[in-house]
Amino acid sequence: MWVVDDAALERIAIGAGILGTGGGGNPYLGKLHARTLLAAGARPVVVGAAEVPDDALVTSVGGMGSPTIAVERVQRGDEPLVAMRALERHLGRRFTHVVPGEIGGSNSVRPIVVAAQTGLPVVDADAMGRAFPELQMGTFTIYGVRPTPAAIADPRGHVAVFDAIADAKTLERYARAVTIQMGGASGYAFPPMTGADLKRTAVRGTLTLVREVGDAVLAARGGRGDPVEAVLGVCGGRRLFAGKIVDAERRLVGGFARGRLRLAGSDADAGDELTIDLQNEYLIARTGDGRVLAVVPDLICVVDAATAEPITTEVARYGMRVAVLGVPAPALLKAPEALAVIGPRAFGYPEVPYVPMAGTYANGRTAPA
Amino acid sequence: MWVVDDAALERIAIGAGILGTGGGGNPYLGKLHARTLLAAGARPVVVGAAEVPDDALVTSVGGMGSPTIAVERVQRGDEPLVAMRALERHLGRRFTHVVPGEIGGSNSVRPIVVAAQTGLPVVDADAMGRAFPELQMGTFTIYGVRPTPAAIADPRGHVAVFDAIADAKTLERYARAVTIQMGGASGYAFPPMTGADLKRTAVRGTLTLVREVGDAVLAARGGRGDPVEAVLGVCGGRRLFAGKIVDAERRLVGGFARGRLRLAGSDADAGDELTIDLQNEYLIARTGDGRVLAVVPDLICVVDAATAEPITTEVARYGMRVAVLGVPAPALLKAPEALAVIGPRAFGYPEVPYVPMAGTYANGRTAPA
Repeated sequence: MWVVDDAALERIAIGAGILGTGGGGNPYLGKLHARTLLAAGARPVVVGAAEVPDDALVTSVGGMGSPTIAVERVQRGDEPLVAMRALERHLGRRFTHVVPGEIGGSNSVRPIVVAAQTGLPVVDADAMGRAFPELQMGTFTIYGVRPTPAAIADPRGHVAVFDAIADAKTLERYARAVTIQMGGASGYAFPPMTGADLKRTAVRGTLTLVREVGDAVLAARGGRGDPVEAVLGVCGGRRLFAGKIVDAERRLVGGFARGRLRLAGSDADAGDELTIDLQNEYLIARTGDGRVLAVVPDLICVVDAATAEPITTEVARYGMRVAVLGVPAPALLKAPEALAVIGPRAFGYPEVPYVPMAGTYANGRTAPA
Repeated sequence: MWVVDDAALERIAIGAGILGTGGGGNPYLGKLHARTLLAAGARPVVVGAAEVPDDALVTSVGGMGSPTIAVERVQRGDEPLVAMRALERHLGRRFTHVVPGEIGGSNSVRPIVVAAQTGLPVVDADAMGRAFPELQMGTFTIYGVRPTPAAIADPRGHVAVFDAIADAKTLERYARAVTIQMGGASGYAFPPMTGADLKRTAVRGTLTLVREVGDAVLAARGGRGDPVEAVLGVCGGRRLFAGKIVDAERRLVGGFARGRLRLAGSDADAGDELTIDLQNEYLIARTGDGRVLAVVPDLICVVDAATAEPITTEVARYGMRVAVLGVPAPALLKAPEALAVIGPRAFGYPEVPYVPMAGTYANGRTAPA
């Protein structure tokens, strides 16, 4: 158990930005909101998954929509809370814990905001160990938690509650359609689950992980080593490429930012060209001759070459000097039932086999204790 | 108070098809479903609006989506009931009455189906006195009933509940987006209202009206006069045009059937050409030289020239010999606050002023007693 203070928040935002693999939304606005709540006296508590009682009632809370829009459009900051309260009214029960649905980007911070607003503890875990663009792409529902009831809310307080939908991909379609009508971004609360469900299905320890990533980066920036190496030291994985962004193509399609980055190499050993396809997140990194260096669900993290500041898909632009890191996915994402939902085929690359990167996510520190 | 039997059902389907002004869905499938329930012993009761207690809890129930899809896709028939039950769970209260949201087409029959399934009485009234393509186009919400909570359901039992939305047009956008994801058709229940609200806002007597229209048509077909004149005798209004459909253009756009009919005249007095624009319903009838003969909210009804069988927008095709009838809209649709929502401008004709047709809807028989 630990308490989120300003220093932890700063580190979480850095680490979550990196593990966001380009997506999950920029954590900056959520960090500012959380900091305001901390200044007003909130003390959000993070508890380990093992500490959550089996009969607890848990939900993930976060934001849905294109990160491009989430940056450009002012949010109230209470959309996930409004969604959670609507879900509680629907269930006729109150939640005892919140948990991030994804650890990448803003959705690592939004549950902390809800915790600060409500006093509920945040579970040190999530459903992805990274970020993914769609609701069905989390371990909670992949491993059998029913996706509904689910609720979304917009800045005007408008609420939609979905129920009796057994298939998370159908929920994704319905919720995405309303989110687009809501202006492109919404807050969500889903799925309701017991503590036992959470412990069975979550990727554990990931809030601590992103805090430690941020801590290592800040220490390295302060003079104790190379920030990019510091990231790899905590996350596992390796440097795939170093070079300059020479083209960043993004367009808004069906509520998603889709596109491709092209990079020219600065390191002869690493090859002279890299392309990275993206759908909110970075999905597949290929050399100029088409060789796959890393593919989803393994993590492709683009960071500033000098500072390891995360380069999310919506801020990537021509001329940035970056390092591209490959980090092995959490074990829960590599089972066949998970790959069916978040493997290359699910993202439109049926021709690309999933060949896992060597190594272990977070050097093996996120498995159940 | 009267009971819906097979004969009444047959007549309601004919009258509702005509007052559907081309839309509202073909009542045929709903009629078959209701007939099955009647055969199993159901006795749906129709009560006048004046008989509904002020503290009753009423909702309209019906179907949403393109009529083209509603005909082509098999429905379960309990989608509006599933939506109503979801709305009851959300409210924590049970409804005491149901009422048609529109009297045109299938949505006149669906509340009768729900009444047969539940034993609830149906109120002899609706929110349009005709059919309209969008949820916000009803008198309940035009005259101040809050549009939410509202629920929709699909044939798989999937449910979406919308809440805290003050603006019916926003509800329309959200519910339409999910309906499209549901395959293009859904059942709805909305808005919850008191009996007092209903009496203040409804177009009264319209189930009786469509039954009488059907009765007059059947009598005329049986040899006692001209079926088309029989329609006008009950509904009011006049014959705008008689001729042949020479072109029927329809496309599915954003969940709606949009398009235009072109007709060539068989009656020299009526002019030699007519075009009718449609969005699920017939919206505006213009002569070859651009003169507006009738425009929404006044009713444009296309019927078979010999039998007065309604020609809905999805069955209209080349070669059909038809009469085009214009019927004055109910008084509640002609007030400025109503015209803002269902006048020519709301349908994309800002250049067309609303000049009311001479005469009175249903010869004045639908006003409060």
